[in-house]
Amino acid sequence: MADQLIIFDTTLRDGEQSPGASMNKDEKLRIARQLERLKVDVIEAGFAASSNGDFEAVQGIARAIKDSTICSLSRANDRDISRAAEALKGANRSRIHTFIATSALHMEKKLRMTPDQVFEQAKLAVRFARNLVADVEFSPEDAYRSDEDFLCRVIEAAINEGATTINVPDTVGYAIPELYGTFIKTLRERVPNSDKAIWSVHCHNDLGMAVANSLAGVKIGGARQVECTINGLGERAGNCSLEEVVMAVKTRRDYFGLDVDIETQHILAASRMVSQITGFVVQPNKAIVGANAFAHAAGIHQDGVLKARDTYEIMRAEDVGWSANKIVLSKVSGRNAFKQRLQDLGAQMESESDVNAAFARFKELADRKSEIFDEDILALVGSESVAREKEQYSFVSLSQHSETGERPQASIVFTADGKEVKSSSDGDGPVDASLKAIEAQVKSGAEMVLYSVNAISGSTESQGEVTVRLQHGGRVVNGVGADPDIIVASAKAYLSALSKLHSKADRVAAQG
Amino acid sequence: MADQLIIFDTTLRDGEQSPGASMNKDEKLRIARQLERLKVDVIEAGFAASSNGDFEAVQGIARAIKDSTICSLSRANDRDISRAAEALKGANRSRIHTFIATSALHMEKKLRMTPDQVFEQAKLAVRFARNLVADVEFSPEDAYRSDEDFLCRVIEAAINEGATTINVPDTVGYAIPELYGTFIKTLRERVPNSDKAIWSVHCHNDLGMAVANSLAGVKIGGARQVECTINGLGERAGNCSLEEVVMAVKTRRDYFGLDVDIETQHILAASRMVSQITGFVVQPNKAIVGANAFAHAAGIHQDGVLKARDTYEIMRAEDVGWSANKIVLSKVSGRNAFKQRLQDLGAQMESESDVNAAFARFKELADRKSEIFDEDILALVGSESVAREKEQYSFVSLSQHSETGERPQASIVFTADGKEVKSSSDGDGPVDASLKAIEAQVKSGAEMVLYSVNAISGSTESQGEVTVRLQHGGRVVNGVGADPDIIVASAKAYLSALSKLHSKADRVAAQG
Repeated sequence: MADQLIIFDTTLRDGEQSPGASMNKDEKLRIARQLERLKVDVIEAGFAASSNGDFEAVQGIARAIKDSTICSLSRANDRDISRAAEALKGANRSRIHTFIATSALHMEKKLRMTPDQVFEQAKLAVRFARNLVADVEFSPEDAYRSDEDFLCRVIEAAINEGATTINVPDTVGYAIPELYGTFIKTLRERVPNSDKAIWSVHCHNDLGMAVANSLAGVKIGGARQVECTINGLGERAGNCSLEEVVMAVKTRRDYFGLDVDIETQHILAASRMVSQITGFVVQPNKAIVGANAFAHAAGIHQDGVLKARDTYEIMRAEDVGWSANKIVLSKVSGRNAFKQRLQDLGAQMESESDVNAAFARFKELADRKSEIFDEDILALVGSESVAREKEQYSFVSLSQHSETGERPQASIVFTADGKEVKSSSDGDGPVDASLKAIEAQVKSGAEMVLYSVNAISGSTESQGEVTVRLQHGGRVVNGVGADPDIIVASAKAYLSALSKLHSKADRVAAQG
Repeated sequence: MADQLIIFDTTLRDGEQSPGASMNKDEKLRIARQLERLKVDVIEAGFAASSNGDFEAVQGIARAIKDSTICSLSRANDRDISRAAEALKGANRSRIHTFIATSALHMEKKLRMTPDQVFEQAKLAVRFARNLVADVEFSPEDAYRSDEDFLCRVIEAAINEGATTINVPDTVGYAIPELYGTFIKTLRERVPNSDKAIWSVHCHNDLGMAVANSLAGVKIGGARQVECTINGLGERAGNCSLEEVVMAVKTRRDYFGLDVDIETQHILAASRMVSQITGFVVQPNKAIVGANAFAHAAGIHQDGVLKARDTYEIMRAEDVGWSANKIVLSKVSGRNAFKQRLQDLGAQMESESDVNAAFARFKELADRKSEIFDEDILALVGSESVAREKEQYSFVSLSQHSETGERPQASIVFTADGKEVKSSSDGDGPVDASLKAIEAQVKSGAEMVLYSVNAISGSTESQGEVTVRLQHGGRVVNGVGADPDIIVASAKAYLSALSKLHSKADRVAAQG
């Protein structure tokens, strides 16, 4: 029997921590369902004690997901751990992941604690967690830059207290494969009770080596859990990318000799969903999930590929969800074809009434454009899901005009708390004029930190999907809007972001 | 004295080979100048025998660049090598890079040659090249999947014939750091005359490990040249990324003990230039050059970073060209401030008259928008450079209108071969209507394979920079257009792409 490699996905926790990638509860639940379809072993759903919003998201995921273990992060203190345990109630399988920094730099500058204090707190935290759940993971933060003797003492104590997984983070992305692999190996050799726990790797991509470091931790070090995120989402340069690490282990089974349970054909849908929700684009030359990753899927064949597929391809595009024949829907497509497509795209809906609502929007869209691409459907479902939350601001209608030599003008109608508001403005361009018209009434004072137009399936006949990121009072929110008219899509995205800014403000206030 | 690591950039050759990333001669020259500022040791400027366009680009770069060695790729035959040598005349330092596949799969399926034929051809090619230039690089394509005995024989013969650099490509991105490092080490041990050449690594990123593989080839294998591209541009998942490999060697000098000559503060400008020219976006979580790679540069501070910078940062953002204080220009900025900013952005112009033309456009733009961001300046210079080529189609004016419930309308005026053309159309959105209006007159029949709105510095007050990629008759071209009005930017991009489609068609015909 081959060894099993445990895939621990932290898109919803470490990924979401990335500035600008914050998600609401509904969005997190959609991603969690897709991670379950992927057969991810462990889903880190959030950091329950960090906010009421995060608590509710962890709780919602713990109740909805049946197949994956659901995990919450918590600092090494009783309050955090209790909140995590409470949020996880109702999960089929739950894990508490508690952490404390062990590097001299982090202990001194961030924690302002002595090593002995950190040692004691780590012990007590694992003990406390273990009394609440059977599955406890312990992470010495910044482990890779920690003093080895001290680190061994802390890990030994954590295992003695019942930690079942020991995770060794390269928090700042400083490692090199050979060194990191040897580091894990040394720790496992030196910690006397190391065989009582599963060892885990958690690598950041600051030097572009998160995947290689993780795999060296597995191959050289003997770790059997990899912590990763969809699209490598995460702070700074992000985390180890799930799709790359999984496909490396599968493609090079000759070298790794490990099994992974991931249903890889759902990878592309997961990648698109995360990109759409966060507004973080995937670059075309991104491995596995980039638009160019499998040249032939883009309709472009090279001579070599035509002569023999293996000449330039080591993986099959279909195995990660690329299909050569994209089914394109149109206005004559029925409800079943639509529902099937949703399922293929990993975008199945919660209830039949949600399917009906999405189908009605699909029909409306199909009246306005001749061909409906996968991206259109995902955008439609995305805005559907956003619409399901009570939104403070919503789009009604827009009229805009621009002409060379004149200043662009826009007039917009939208609702604020259910009441219709009309506004007009000029601007540098028609998008600018439309958003200025909204802002003239809402007066949010928010700063726009990102405006992007996302993956349109190629032609301008596809819907425009616009992401707007606003920053105000230390909070960052994303709004997404889709429409065949890019100006309308921009206005929708801006209104959605304003709504989120408002609801987030409520949430923080409620936390007191 | 520490060893020197040679940085061989192939953005203009292997990078440009990526579907959709093709560049014209002017664009290539701009990038080559930036690579020279970076102090790249070797610039692979193209594949001279592949087309007249590529020949001219290599020739132009060979004449313009003084500090870097200029290299042209060539297949292992006399005609290709002669063309390369001809294009390289005038270079201060020139290199011919000749290659032939050595894996059983490639020899049989692609070349349809026996190993003995390949062996002979490799020998003859290196001999022929060495008679033309002193600096000859030889690559056995798909080396990593080649029979080791055969590969050793071929490499030994190539060195005997005078190859000064031996490059060992992992053509399909199949390698793992430990295995690839050991592979290079073994080859160097087994090839009797291995010390007569510099060994080079060339890795692809299909499994996300191109950087780690390259560095293992250096550290474990003893290679002293890395082949890489800006932003990791390249076919499928791309090549080893220059910025990552360079910063890894610099940041972990304790481990590698190697010097690199790269002036890293120009990295970000190079990244933006390549992204702008190709239309290939850089994802926010891309190491080194992604918008989030250095969180604090995005104005978002974490508690830890505020307390002590080293807690989460292993590199300084300034060292790769991120500056905390972005100088923002406005209409009162003078010509010198503008010129200085161009230089800081790595966008200095060929002549004073070019500076004057760009400055005039800058003033015109500053009249229309209050703050001018770096992205605006780059967009301005980009369109300036495109405008310098004789364009068949160019934008004159546009009027467009959209209103909820009505079909969007656009009327455009543009010139075709100097003659004014007027056209109107409706469309799914105002962008679609504008492009349909153009197409109604031009009737190119081209298929749009990409429409993207690029890096706007945050707010919608920034200029929109649109990339349009068209495909027609097997050719793929990019057009870029910038304007504060996104509809106008789209129309400009489309016209620019149509112009390129036409000029590329000419070029192929001329080659006969």
